[in-house]
Amino acid sequence: MQLVTNSSEMQSLSLSAKKAGKTIGFVPTMGYLHEGHLSLALAAKAENDLVVVSIFVNPTQFGPGEDFQKYPRDLQRDSVMAEQAGADVLFCPSVEDMYPEGFSTYVEETRLSNHLCGLSRPTHFRGVTTVVLKLFNIVLPDVAYFGQKDAQQALIIKRMARDLNLLVRIEVLPIVRENEGLAMSSRNSYLSPEQRRQATVLHEALMEANRLVDSGERESRRIKSKMREIIASAREARVDYISFVSRDTLEDIEELRGNILIALAVFIGETRLIDNLELDLPSGRE
Amino acid sequence: MQLVTNSSEMQSLSLSAKKAGKTIGFVPTMGYLHEGHLSLALAAKAENDLVVVSIFVNPTQFGPGEDFQKYPRDLQRDSVMAEQAGADVLFCPSVEDMYPEGFSTYVEETRLSNHLCGLSRPTHFRGVTTVVLKLFNIVLPDVAYFGQKDAQQALIIKRMARDLNLLVRIEVLPIVRENEGLAMSSRNSYLSPEQRRQATVLHEALMEANRLVDSGERESRRIKSKMREIIASAREARVDYISFVSRDTLEDIEELRGNILIALAVFIGETRLIDNLELDLPSGRE
Repeated sequence: MQLVTNSSEMQSLSLSAKKAGKTIGFVPTMGYLHEGHLSLALAAKAENDLVVVSIFVNPTQFGPGEDFQKYPRDLQRDSVMAEQAGADVLFCPSVEDMYPEGFSTYVEETRLSNHLCGLSRPTHFRGVTTVVLKLFNIVLPDVAYFGQKDAQQALIIKRMARDLNLLVRIEVLPIVRENEGLAMSSRNSYLSPEQRRQATVLHEALMEANRLVDSGERESRRIKSKMREIIASAREARVDYISFVSRDTLEDIEELRGNILIALAVFIGETRLIDNLELDLPSGRE
Repeated sequence: MQLVTNSSEMQSLSLSAKKAGKTIGFVPTMGYLHEGHLSLALAAKAENDLVVVSIFVNPTQFGPGEDFQKYPRDLQRDSVMAEQAGADVLFCPSVEDMYPEGFSTYVEETRLSNHLCGLSRPTHFRGVTTVVLKLFNIVLPDVAYFGQKDAQQALIIKRMARDLNLLVRIEVLPIVRENEGLAMSSRNSYLSPEQRRQATVLHEALMEANRLVDSGERESRRIKSKMREIIASAREARVDYISFVSRDTLEDIEELRGNILIALAVFIGETRLIDNLELDLPSGRE
């Protein structure tokens, strides 16, 4: 596996690979890799000639007071894991390389970004779309892989790819979970053992929602109230949002039908965690 | 010359050309071609294997109350002119193709855009950067050609290309002028013969500025006042702005030194015209 730290060098390497007729699979990450990331790299390996994993803790997607400084970083550990998962190139640019003096161009998705996490983190998705477009232009992937844990991010990236006529195909792979159901996340490393036990309430609340829907419940209000009860059972939990939205628009829905997303963000102590569940329900009324 | 009206078809055509090792020169226009556009196409022809000229009157770069509806359009005349200038492909997408239902992703340059025309036309450059990035992703040019008449646009596109790691090289070619000095523009077609005579004051004011600088004048205030006098001599002229700015930042400067841009926008009747002059002056103080 090759380590590349410079964006021009990465772009040249990708151009050469493409001229040689190779396909490139790309897994953009902020590092501190876990099995969720590895599942993306393995899929990239299975489907492409060259696999590029990037590690870049992107300052523009953190708001003031968020955890940019303390976000976990461990390049040595990440290198070993990325190589084992089949990465051919590990791309780790510096902040100065990605955002040179006088940087002033941003990509902004203006509809899907105004819901869910966009409400609590108003500049977050602008940072995400900007850095992802830059990374696409540097790495030149045929396919890029994202995790379903960040469901809103995945929908926004797909929208950007369509709107800006990008040549890359976006693949979204299922959430990978710990045995107890907690969705894998680099931010889980912030949790104490006790908090980690409490953090399983996110998944439990979603499972309860699933059961209620299976049993015929279609009123989001009633399901939400049950989910809040479950989350309230964890002493350090504080709900940021629990939302039932259309998967096309991310707008709130009252009565469940069609393609919906149940998404939630919950603080466990100081740590903000997200999780979600997609449901395909009959779209018509009887 | 091939006419392409669909963005997927254009992208496939460009991909095939690139796979065959051809270089692509691209001239994005809003049509109603004039010799300024043709000088760009001729340069593209001289430097590339394949020349693509696009014609797209881009709604997102027009503000409310601006001339989107009445902007001059004449595809037949443009086809003949583009072919004569060496275009191999004329790409004329529809608004529905470029901005499909639910379109919500924009590219925004946030510094250079806040000066000069950006003040009178607050959403203009967001429309420009968005459509130009889309066109680049569809046409996949090695080199794209822009006219110096839109000096601010050229600087913003260059900034975007750097900031977003685009592979395209941006070439900016000199203003082409009518015999009497009026900068060529599709919007000149709005002018009556009498207004066209009056419109030469833009160039005359710039020439006077040049003479004053040559004679040692370095106070923008004094030059500006002379330029206003010249423009006021045209009965239907109304100044939108006359600005002396740094070419790096587009910020106003008082004392002229270094790389500067003298830019102006003037209404002649209802028609808003722009023109500019670049100067390279010694940067130090004595």
